[in-house]
Amino acid sequence: MSDIQTQFVKNVLADAASAPKPTGSAFAPSNIALAKYWGKRAAALNLPINSSLSISLGALGTRTEIRVRGSVEATSSSLDRGSDVPVAPDDVYLNGVLQAPETSFARRVSSFLDLFRPLFAGRGFEVRTENNIPTAAGLASSASGFAALVMALDDLAGWGLDKKRLSMLARLGSGSAARSVYDGFVQWNAGENPDGTDSFAERVDAVWPDFRVGVLELSAAEKPVGSRDGMNRTVETSALYESWPAQARRDIETIRTAIENRDFSALGAAAENNALAMHATMMSAWPPLIYLQPESIEMIHQVQRVRAEGLEVYLTIDAGPNLKLLFLAENEAAVAAAFPELQLIKPFG
Amino acid sequence: MSDIQTQFVKNVLADAASAPKPTGSAFAPSNIALAKYWGKRAAALNLPINSSLSISLGALGTRTEIRVRGSVEATSSSLDRGSDVPVAPDDVYLNGVLQAPETSFARRVSSFLDLFRPLFAGRGFEVRTENNIPTAAGLASSASGFAALVMALDDLAGWGLDKKRLSMLARLGSGSAARSVYDGFVQWNAGENPDGTDSFAERVDAVWPDFRVGVLELSAAEKPVGSRDGMNRTVETSALYESWPAQARRDIETIRTAIENRDFSALGAAAENNALAMHATMMSAWPPLIYLQPESIEMIHQVQRVRAEGLEVYLTIDAGPNLKLLFLAENEAAVAAAFPELQLIKPFG
Repeated sequence: MSDIQTQFVKNVLADAASAPKPTGSAFAPSNIALAKYWGKRAAALNLPINSSLSISLGALGTRTEIRVRGSVEATSSSLDRGSDVPVAPDDVYLNGVLQAPETSFARRVSSFLDLFRPLFAGRGFEVRTENNIPTAAGLASSASGFAALVMALDDLAGWGLDKKRLSMLARLGSGSAARSVYDGFVQWNAGENPDGTDSFAERVDAVWPDFRVGVLELSAAEKPVGSRDGMNRTVETSALYESWPAQARRDIETIRTAIENRDFSALGAAAENNALAMHATMMSAWPPLIYLQPESIEMIHQVQRVRAEGLEVYLTIDAGPNLKLLFLAENEAAVAAAFPELQLIKPFG
Repeated sequence: MSDIQTQFVKNVLADAASAPKPTGSAFAPSNIALAKYWGKRAAALNLPINSSLSISLGALGTRTEIRVRGSVEATSSSLDRGSDVPVAPDDVYLNGVLQAPETSFARRVSSFLDLFRPLFAGRGFEVRTENNIPTAAGLASSASGFAALVMALDDLAGWGLDKKRLSMLARLGSGSAARSVYDGFVQWNAGENPDGTDSFAERVDAVWPDFRVGVLELSAAEKPVGSRDGMNRTVETSALYESWPAQARRDIETIRTAIENRDFSALGAAAENNALAMHATMMSAWPPLIYLQPESIEMIHQVQRVRAEGLEVYLTIDAGPNLKLLFLAENEAAVAAAFPELQLIKPFG
């Protein structure tokens, strides 16, 4: 927690109402970026160098319940904490299981809640988080997780924040969480201001019921380098990165136009090119950042092959080894035949 | 053969002597670029967008013998040619085997010889080419092949061309052949003139006996897209390519300084970064150009792993799936242990 973060939260909550309830709860969908976020211009406020555009995954995501705990001092769990563990007087449950305070999950949640704790008389929280994303899906849960947490807090306190403000707060937990406060297609505008007040997501007004996403889980191995460090290394060392922000800008324009025209081929091509260009910036960093695994390359070639044979399927890959496929309902059977391990997702239900 | 090529050859040979012999012969080494050539600014004269820097592979390369044939019309092979085959009244032998005129090897040789044929009264040639590059090495033979062919022609005609002019002529056959007229470290200057007269290679004055190259052949499969088409596609469609020429320029400076200071780590890092950046420009082309195979990614990760453990080994990869490793004599045994399939090359003998 830094002064700049505290000030930012204060600004965002300046006009907030107050109608506290005993329990706040919310659901936020997971999302997959079609035009990726890669590179921070300011770390403390999670401000991106480039805008990004995503598709939310409908009913797949995170449901969170939060309440203020009766008393911090009265619990044995807070007394048990060693001195090297940051003070985090919260009970954090993930899928029904209480997480030890020193786990990275509990630490991230508590340190995010620290930003809001002064508004709750410094008290601890009980947080119950349920992810319905299949564990095997290889989908990041931090986007839906922080979005759901902020929305649950808003519900608890009765702030009545609009989506724009919820998006800005979620961003502090994880950049991509800024997009998970909406359903459907979502654009997160990078913004320009150092104070972070113009960096928030907006819904793209479009419903495309036939749009399909497929997840190919190739490796559940933990990333050798996390996204945050990976971004910083890329921005600092990749000579090719200097061309990335302009490409991201063009890809977003292309994808928005493609959504408007329901031009799936244009959308797919731009999304695949964008994802591979992001991996290209990583690969040209030093030391090289290669999130792709042998199986990823095999499946990338497989996508090129079946598309050359006429099947309209495109890929996207986040900072990890797993592919996500993009296609339309009419090709569901053919894509499933070409990629038997595919997990099908219908973003519009 | 275009007018611009004919004019270029005429210019290069303007001051050439003439002392014909019955047979011309020459050897040229294969080479591996440490700072890659990727992208043409003019196709007909094989003029590159960026300069490149290579290491020649000592005694590994191509030996070529050439003589003028007695009479074009007298041979049955020339009479047999169909009308859709370009006139190529040459007998071209590769490793002792006469190549049918419609093979891509014979066509490339004959079409290159067409540039010089008027100087030999339009007659056909007998060309005998021997590559001593292990077939399994996955090394391109067109660089040493065209360099040896030009040098053998020079020997046959007694032109007495200097290396600079030999380099310019070899370039017309294959860009990287411009570098194969020298031993050791070689820099091919991109040049700026549209007439191609300032685009030639020069030797870097340095001998580094402990310098080692290792070849890891991972796949002998033919490339789905040749280098020429791959370059053009990258230049035309990759947004990241616009950052490539400046990177290439910096990498060459870094590598030259590293050679001067015998700073192997600096050389290795720049060469590996350069090769991965070249692959990054390909990957961000559309449609994506992915020369890497699953085994390539496995070995790229393996190089990162053993280097993180302290072994000074770096990789480079041309437009194909195979890795070449760079290391010093002192680490020969350790590198061979980490990469059992390695074929060792000593560029300085």
